[in-house]
Amino acid sequence: MKQSQMFIPTMKETPADAESVSHRLLLRGGFIRQNAAGVYSYLPLGYKIIKKIETIIREEMDGIGSQELLMPAMQPAELWHETGRWDVYGPELMRLKDRHGRYFALGATGEELITSLIRDYLNSYKKLPMSLYQIQTKFRDEKRPRFGLLRGREFIMKDAYTFHDSAESLDKSYWEMYHAYCRIFERCGLKYRAVLADSGAIGGKDTHEFQALAEIGEDTIAYSDSSDYAANLEMAAVLDTDDAIKGKALPLEKVSGNQEIAQDTALTAHWFKTRTDTVVVFIKTGDEINDVKIKNVLGTDLIEPLETSNKDAIHPDKGVRVLADNALKHLAQTSVYNEAENLTYFHLDPDRDLAIERYDDLRFIKEGDPSPDGNGVIKFARGIEIGQVFKLGTKYSEAMNATYLDADGKAKPLIMGCYGIGVSRTLSAICEQYHDDEGMIWPKSLTPFTIHLITVNPKNEEQLKLSEKLYTQFSNQGYDVLWDERKERPGVKFADSELIGCPVQVIVGKKAADQIVELASRKQKERIETKVGQLSDAVTELLKTLD
Amino acid sequence: MKQSQMFIPTMKETPADAESVSHRLLLRGGFIRQNAAGVYSYLPLGYKIIKKIETIIREEMDGIGSQELLMPAMQPAELWHETGRWDVYGPELMRLKDRHGRYFALGATGEELITSLIRDYLNSYKKLPMSLYQIQTKFRDEKRPRFGLLRGREFIMKDAYTFHDSAESLDKSYWEMYHAYCRIFERCGLKYRAVLADSGAIGGKDTHEFQALAEIGEDTIAYSDSSDYAANLEMAAVLDTDDAIKGKALPLEKVSGNQEIAQDTALTAHWFKTRTDTVVVFIKTGDEINDVKIKNVLGTDLIEPLETSNKDAIHPDKGVRVLADNALKHLAQTSVYNEAENLTYFHLDPDRDLAIERYDDLRFIKEGDPSPDGNGVIKFARGIEIGQVFKLGTKYSEAMNATYLDADGKAKPLIMGCYGIGVSRTLSAICEQYHDDEGMIWPKSLTPFTIHLITVNPKNEEQLKLSEKLYTQFSNQGYDVLWDERKERPGVKFADSELIGCPVQVIVGKKAADQIVELASRKQKERIETKVGQLSDAVTELLKTLD
Repeated sequence: MKQSQMFIPTMKETPADAESVSHRLLLRGGFIRQNAAGVYSYLPLGYKIIKKIETIIREEMDGIGSQELLMPAMQPAELWHETGRWDVYGPELMRLKDRHGRYFALGATGEELITSLIRDYLNSYKKLPMSLYQIQTKFRDEKRPRFGLLRGREFIMKDAYTFHDSAESLDKSYWEMYHAYCRIFERCGLKYRAVLADSGAIGGKDTHEFQALAEIGEDTIAYSDSSDYAANLEMAAVLDTDDAIKGKALPLEKVSGNQEIAQDTALTAHWFKTRTDTVVVFIKTGDEINDVKIKNVLGTDLIEPLETSNKDAIHPDKGVRVLADNALKHLAQTSVYNEAENLTYFHLDPDRDLAIERYDDLRFIKEGDPSPDGNGVIKFARGIEIGQVFKLGTKYSEAMNATYLDADGKAKPLIMGCYGIGVSRTLSAICEQYHDDEGMIWPKSLTPFTIHLITVNPKNEEQLKLSEKLYTQFSNQGYDVLWDERKERPGVKFADSELIGCPVQVIVGKKAADQIVELASRKQKERIETKVGQLSDAVTELLKTLD
Repeated sequence: MKQSQMFIPTMKETPADAESVSHRLLLRGGFIRQNAAGVYSYLPLGYKIIKKIETIIREEMDGIGSQELLMPAMQPAELWHETGRWDVYGPELMRLKDRHGRYFALGATGEELITSLIRDYLNSYKKLPMSLYQIQTKFRDEKRPRFGLLRGREFIMKDAYTFHDSAESLDKSYWEMYHAYCRIFERCGLKYRAVLADSGAIGGKDTHEFQALAEIGEDTIAYSDSSDYAANLEMAAVLDTDDAIKGKALPLEKVSGNQEIAQDTALTAHWFKTRTDTVVVFIKTGDEINDVKIKNVLGTDLIEPLETSNKDAIHPDKGVRVLADNALKHLAQTSVYNEAENLTYFHLDPDRDLAIERYDDLRFIKEGDPSPDGNGVIKFARGIEIGQVFKLGTKYSEAMNATYLDADGKAKPLIMGCYGIGVSRTLSAICEQYHDDEGMIWPKSLTPFTIHLITVNPKNEEQLKLSEKLYTQFSNQGYDVLWDERKERPGVKFADSELIGCPVQVIVGKKAADQIVELASRKQKERIETKVGQLSDAVTELLKTLD
C-alpha cells in the first residue's frame, strides 16, 4: 500500500491525557483516535491488527468446535429482569428506551441473551454439549475510562458460552477453552500467565484469568519463581506449614495503656459485619487481611469493615465469630492492645487465650512466601486481564428456566460455562510489551505490514524507480508492504516509521543508483547496506531472527 | 462439520408473523432468530453467509484502494448538533445518556463521525483523494420493523466515505465505487439493477441505488425493456415528445355544474404549498402527479398538498405559481371542472386559456411509456434497495468546518461522497431470489456449506462407515461439508436439508453396502444413484451446472 493513500494520522507530540504507553503509542502511531471518553475509532492501521487478532481467535475457536454467531447489541430489558441483573448491574450497564418506550440494555455481556436463544432448542441431552462464540462490540459505562483501549466504554470482545449435561462435560470444555486461549495468546506473541482467579459474585466455581504481564496492569499476580504456579494476588493460597514449631507458652500478662510491642509478636484484630454476623479476625500485625478469603471462608458475598474502638476482641460478646489466620496456630507468645479495656496483653497464646472458632488462610500472600505448590518462592508481577474462562454452573439456566431432558426423562437446568477475550484490550497489551521509546515494534504475527519501504527522496528518479521495483518484488513475494513514497522530509518519514513499527525497514536512499539500499529491523535499528540482488535473502534471514 | 454439533434450530411450522419469504425461510432454516422487534441474532449458519458477503465486500473495497476502519456505535451528540441533524433526524435516531448525563446517538449513519475524524488530518490537497469504509452494526428505530432483516432496527451495513478537492475527483471515485458495487452484487449472485435515484433532502447531487429485484421490494423500478435504462419510479423522466402534433383549438366553452368529461381530454389541477409559494399544477386526469419532480422543479425540499375546493385554478390569485405537465403542451382541446366557479370548461387550450408559468415533466412514468433513453418501452419491477452511491458535496464539510488547503493556499471545504451497502439486507435479498417452497437454494458463492452429506440411518454400520469416508474425502478436497449424522428420522433429515439449502446433496442410504449413494442438486431435486468411485467427478460436474 502506498503510504500517501493511507489514513495514518501520526502525532509528533505526546497527547497530554494518555497515561499508559499503549494509549500514547496507539494514538501517536495513528492506530486509533478517541471520539469520546473511553470511545475509540480503530483507524486503518489499528483495525488491520484487530482483524489479525480476530482471525487467530476464530481459527482457535473453530478448531475446538465452537460455532460463531452474532447476537445483537440491543438486549431486551425483560431478559435482564429474568436474572435480576437489570437492577443489580448498576450504572455500568448502558440502557436505552426505544420509540415505543421499551427498554433495552446495550450488551455488556451475553449470558442472558444466549440463554434465551438456546433455551427452547437445547432441550435434550442428545444435543449437548454445545459451544457458541461471537466477536462483538460491547458496552460498559465505566466510571473512569482510562488507558485508551485498556478500560474503554465501547470495546471489542470475544465471548463464548458452552452448555452441558454434566460437570465432567463442562470440565472438558473448560480445559479445551483454556488451552485454546493459551494458543491464541501465544500466537499473538504475548507474555502472559493463566492465573487462578476468584469466581466472586458471578456465581460460578472454577475460573482462570489470562493476564498479560505489564507494569501498567491493574491486577497483581503472585507466581512461583520455580514452577508454573500463578494466581491473582487475592487468590494465592498461603501455605499452612502445619509442622511449624510452636514456641513455649508463658503466663498471660496485662499492662495498662497502649504499650510498645515487638513487631514479630504483634497481632491485629479486624472487625467485620456480614449480612448476618459480626466477625473478628486476628492476623499478625504487618500481614495484610484478605477480604476475598474471608468471604469464601464465611460463604458470604458481602463483608463490611466495622469501627473497632469499642469492641473487645479478647472477650467478645456472645455470637461474635472469631477467626484467626493460620500463622497464629504456630505462635505461643503474641501481644495485642485491646482498646476496649485500654490494656496491652503480652504472652498471649491464641489457642489458650482467644475464643477462636477456626484457623484459616485469611491473609494476602507476600513476595518471598513459599509457593503454594511447594516449589520455589512467590514473586509478584502486574498483569492486564485479557481473558477469562469460567464455570458458570446453573445460575443463568435456573433463573431463565433453560432446561433439557436427561436420559432418564427428567428436566434439568443446563450446566454452563462462559469465556471471554478482550480483543481491543489484547491490542493494548501487545503494545505494552512490544515498543521502545520511539514507537511500536510489532510482532510478525500481528504487524499491519511486514516491510516498511521508505523512499528517502521520491523526487529523485533513481530512488523512485528502484523503490517501485522493490515494492512490486516484495508484494509478489507475498509480503504486506507499506511504501512511504510521500514527499516529506526524511526526518518526518523515519519518525513515522518508528511510530508505525513494521518489523523490517528497507530504506532506498542516495546509493539507489548503485543498487544499494539499507536494511534494518525496527527493533535493532542498525542499518546494513545491502545490494539489491541480496535483499530478498537478507529480508528472509532477518525475519527469522524476529519475534 | 457434524450436524449434531451445530446449532441449527430449524422450524417445521411457518412462523405466523413472518410476512416475507426471506423472513420465513431464514427463521425456518435456523439462520436467524428474533430477539426483539427488528432485532435479530445471526445463528451459525446465517453468520457464515454474512461473513462470506463481508469477505466479497472487503475484497472489492480493498481492490479500489478504500481502507477499512471501524468507528464506534456511540457517537457524541455534539457532532450531530454541528450538522443540525440531532434535531432533524427524528425518532429513528436512537439516543442514550451516559452516567455523566452526556448524550450519544447510536450510529444510524456515519457522516458526522467520519468528518470529525478526518477534519484535522485531511488538511491539504496533497492528501486527497482519500477513501475509507467500515462494516459495522447500525441502529435505526424504525416505526414498523418488518420483513425480518429487510427492515430491522439493528443491522449490518458497509458504509464508505470519500474526500476530494474537485468534482472530477469525486466523479472518478463515484464511478469506481459504482462498479465495485456491481461486482459485489454480481459475486453474490444477485439479480439487481443500478437505478437513478432522488438525492432528496440529504443534500447531494448524483445518486444511484442498487435494487435487488424481488416482489416483496418496497421500491418500484422503471426500466426499459430494450436497454440498460433503469430509475426509481419517482425519478424516471417522461420523454417530452416535442414534435407531437397539437390538435386544433376551438372556442372555450363554459357549462354550469360538474359535467361529464371524456377521459382523454380531462385535466386535474393539484394545489400545493411550499415554504414560500402557493402552486397549482395541471396534469392530465389519470396521470399521477409526482411530488419529487415538482420539488426538484421548484428547488424546494418541502411541498404540502392544499385543500382545493375554494381555489380557482383558471383565474388564480396573484402570486400563485401555475405549472403544467409537458403533456399539456400538445393538447388544444382539454376540459376541466373548476369547483370555485362551479363551471366545467370545455375546449380549454392550456397555452391560450391558462396562466402557465412553465411546462415540465411533473408526472410519474407509466408502464408502456417510451423509455427516456429512446430505446424501448418502460416496464415496472419491484426492488429491494441493497446499496446506494451518493455525491454528498460539501454539506457536511461546510457544517463541520472540514477544510483543506488547496494548491493556491486557500482553505476550501472537502468535497465528499458517501456509499452504503446493507449487508444483512443483502442476505434477505438473496433469500428472496434463491429459494423454493421447501427452503433455501444457496448460490455457490455464499452457501454456508457446499455439500450436505446425509446419512439416512447412522445406526447402520455400513452407512456410517461410508459416510465417514466420504466426509473425510470431501473435506480433503477442500469442500465445506455439513454431515447430517444425527439419529433422526429420514423425513426430518430431508426436510431440514431442504430448509438449509446446500447446493449439493449426497445421500448415503440402503445401498451403502454396494458403494452406491444418491447425488442430487438442491435445485433440481432429482436423485441420481452414483457409484462412490465416480462421486467426486459427478460432484464436480454437478457444481459446474449450478449458480
